[in-house]
Amino acid sequence: MTPTDASVRQQIFGTQEERILERLSALDPDLMAYVRDFAYGTVYERPGLDLRTKELVACALLASLGSPDELRTHLRGALRAGASEEEVRETLLLCIPYLGFPRAVAAFAQLQALLASREKAPTPEE
Amino acid sequence: MTPTDASVRQQIFGTQEERILERLSALDPDLMAYVRDFAYGTVYERPGLDLRTKELVACALLASLGSPDELRTHLRGALRAGASEEEVRETLLLCIPYLGFPRAVAAFAQLQALLASREKAPTPEE
Amino acid sequence: MTPTDASVRQQIFGTQEERILERLSALDPDLMAYVRDFAYGTVYERPGLDLRTKELVACALLASLGSPDELRTHLRGALRAGASEEEVRETLLLCIPYLGFPRAVAAFAQLQALLASREKAPTPEE
Amino acid sequence: MTPTDASVRQQIFGTQEERILERLSALDPDLMAYVRDFAYGTVYERPGLDLRTKELVACALLASLGSPDELRTHLRGALRAGASEEEVRETLLLCIPYLGFPRAVAAFAQLQALLASREKAPTPEE
Amino acid sequence: MTPTDASVRQQIFGTQEERILERLSALDPDLMAYVRDFAYGTVYERPGLDLRTKELVACALLASLGSPDELRTHLRGALRAGASEEEVRETLLLCIPYLGFPRAVAAFAQLQALLASREKAPTPEE
Amino acid sequence: MTPTDASVRQQIFGTQEERILERLSALDPDLMAYVRDFAYGTVYERPGLDLRTKELVACALLASLGSPDELRTHLRGALRAGASEEEVRETLLLCIPYLGFPRAVAAFAQLQALLASREKAPTPEE
Repeated sequence: MTPTDASVRQQIFGTQEERILERLSALDPDLMAYVRDFAYGTVYERPGLDLRTKELVACALLASLGSPDELRTHLRGALRAGASEEEVRETLLLCIPYLGFPRAVAAFAQLQALLASREKAPTPEE
Repeated sequence: MTPTDASVRQQIFGTQEERILERLSALDPDLMAYVRDFAYGTVYERPGLDLRTKELVACALLASLGSPDELRTHLRGALRAGASEEEVRETLLLCIPYLGFPRAVAAFAQLQALLASREKAPTPEE
Repeated sequence: MTPTDASVRQQIFGTQEERILERLSALDPDLMAYVRDFAYGTVYERPGLDLRTKELVACALLASLGSPDELRTHLRGALRAGASEEEVRETLLLCIPYLGFPRAVAAFAQLQALLASREKAPTPEE
Repeated sequence: MTPTDASVRQQIFGTQEERILERLSALDPDLMAYVRDFAYGTVYERPGLDLRTKELVACALLASLGSPDELRTHLRGALRAGASEEEVRETLLLCIPYLGFPRAVAAFAQLQALLASREKAPTPEE
Repeated sequence: MTPTDASVRQQIFGTQEERILERLSALDPDLMAYVRDFAYGTVYERPGLDLRTKELVACALLASLGSPDELRTHLRGALRAGASEEEVRETLLLCIPYLGFPRAVAAFAQLQALLASREKAPTPEE
Repeated sequence: MTPTDASVRQQIFGTQEERILERLSALDPDLMAYVRDFAYGTVYERPGLDLRTKELVACALLASLGSPDELRTHLRGALRAGASEEEVRETLLLCIPYLGFPRAVAAFAQLQALLASREKAPTPEE
């Protein structure tokens, strides 16, 4: 694993990196390895698009899929990668004309839960 | 319609704006009005996220939906809004871990068709 | 097959009934039998909801699935079952807040194609 | 907001209107405004299709999307708009040939929960 | 109901057959009848493909639909029909290139929950 | 690339392997590399599930996604991997209770086209 590779996961996951990889590994060790080495180590590590934009794109894709847990992880990742809360909100609002309201509402519910959890436990890292 | 509103549609659609709105209007005049006034005039016109990022997000959402015509329109829109071809490619490659390969391959086929049509008919505007 | 059962398929398909069942049978005889006996003969034949409403619901579901051929069949079916063109348009417009614009635009394209084909070949039956 | 506009939301939401709009507003004030002014105030307010049919169509679309909360809201809305329980059940059964069983089963689970909550707290309004 | 028909449902559902059919019947008696007589009694009872393969295919389809309850039922069904845990895992891993990671992760979460419940309450039947 | 890796792609693609990889490479060289090295070289090459079952699962997943080109490739792949035409048909029929009829009908249309093309150009290899 290259240092650069570790850095992108670190930027997105922060202090939750170990927990997330352990959860995936408990599901299936090879699933975890593919997430770590292909999704993050290969695709996400690519240069050519800044991480903030990548994470906003990821949030839109996860709103489309209706995957609440992964969406919350990448809403946090977008904020960690330098997107403002306003930019995250704009990304979710842009989902409305493409996906309709139900998917957008479900995505905002994840954002609300994320912001609430951050208020309760604000840390420099997370 | 505010001048700003016209400007965003103009930035995305370019010389094809009239053709696109006429096609929508032939489908249904109110459908066209909602696309023009709500999708573009209200949601897209919002400040707070740059148009280049909005269009990359739109491309990802349309790759997820599997909507080839709209995808091609917004691949073109992303390039018109200042995204490089590389950034567009990176956005589509980022779809792979979220959507799998078939949706990504279909999206690249639209990008290929768009780039081929631009080579045949390069214009300063389009 | 009960006479009632034939009647619902007849009401929806009209003169195209034989062609549609033959096409399905050429794909797979059991597939055709399940469409005929379960989808139409069992589910569609149920009393308790008028056929016009059933067909409008079917149009919305097929807009959601993005199945253009079946959508056109049931847009025609809705008109044959007594829905006005306006009611069909309203059903597709109602898809916008739930599904977003791309699915709705694709559905209106099928309606446009259906109406164009009817203008070219108007018959009392079809 | 026109009186007519208030009326459709009122017909669908009943006594839960304020709670629903407040929940949306807590998610994002502009999201709430778009739901209220575009989805309901513009699209739903359109004449040309009766509200009972609109709500049955909405139930089918939400069964397709797999959006449980919104589905329950519009199952209630369909009943409030004059659809009988039988008509709602027929609409969900019609989803089977289009969407398959898993989506239909999930939709009936929401109907069951709604009917159970109404038995516990029957009110003239709700 | 033919003895053969009962046998396939029995093979998949095991001791949970009665509970599952009762739950479906509480949702809607005709929904239950269609699941029992069409999905299982007609489609699943077809010869020509072994039940182990059918259940692995069903697991992949339910991972694609994102239907957690039905997925767990058929992950159990696959194991009951003679698939090894490894074969089930391979089926879910094969979903990654087609569906992307979020759907695959959600599917493995259901497998993990199923295996955990079996460890707690191991029975010869279940 | 290991010989084993080449072998699985070869088993699925047959004489069309080069054409398929060239088409993907023309879309995007890295997209092609990820298909070749991750989807096929890593995931498909895994032992633990026979290729015939993998390809039947892939056909079901592609029927669910509604990806006609990839579906045809893997319908062919299933036949090449030792599945009988009957087993392929049974897999598609099993999609009906999970996905509904429109997806199944679209999948059978791809099977029909594949079988027709094979009758026209029967070769020992393809």
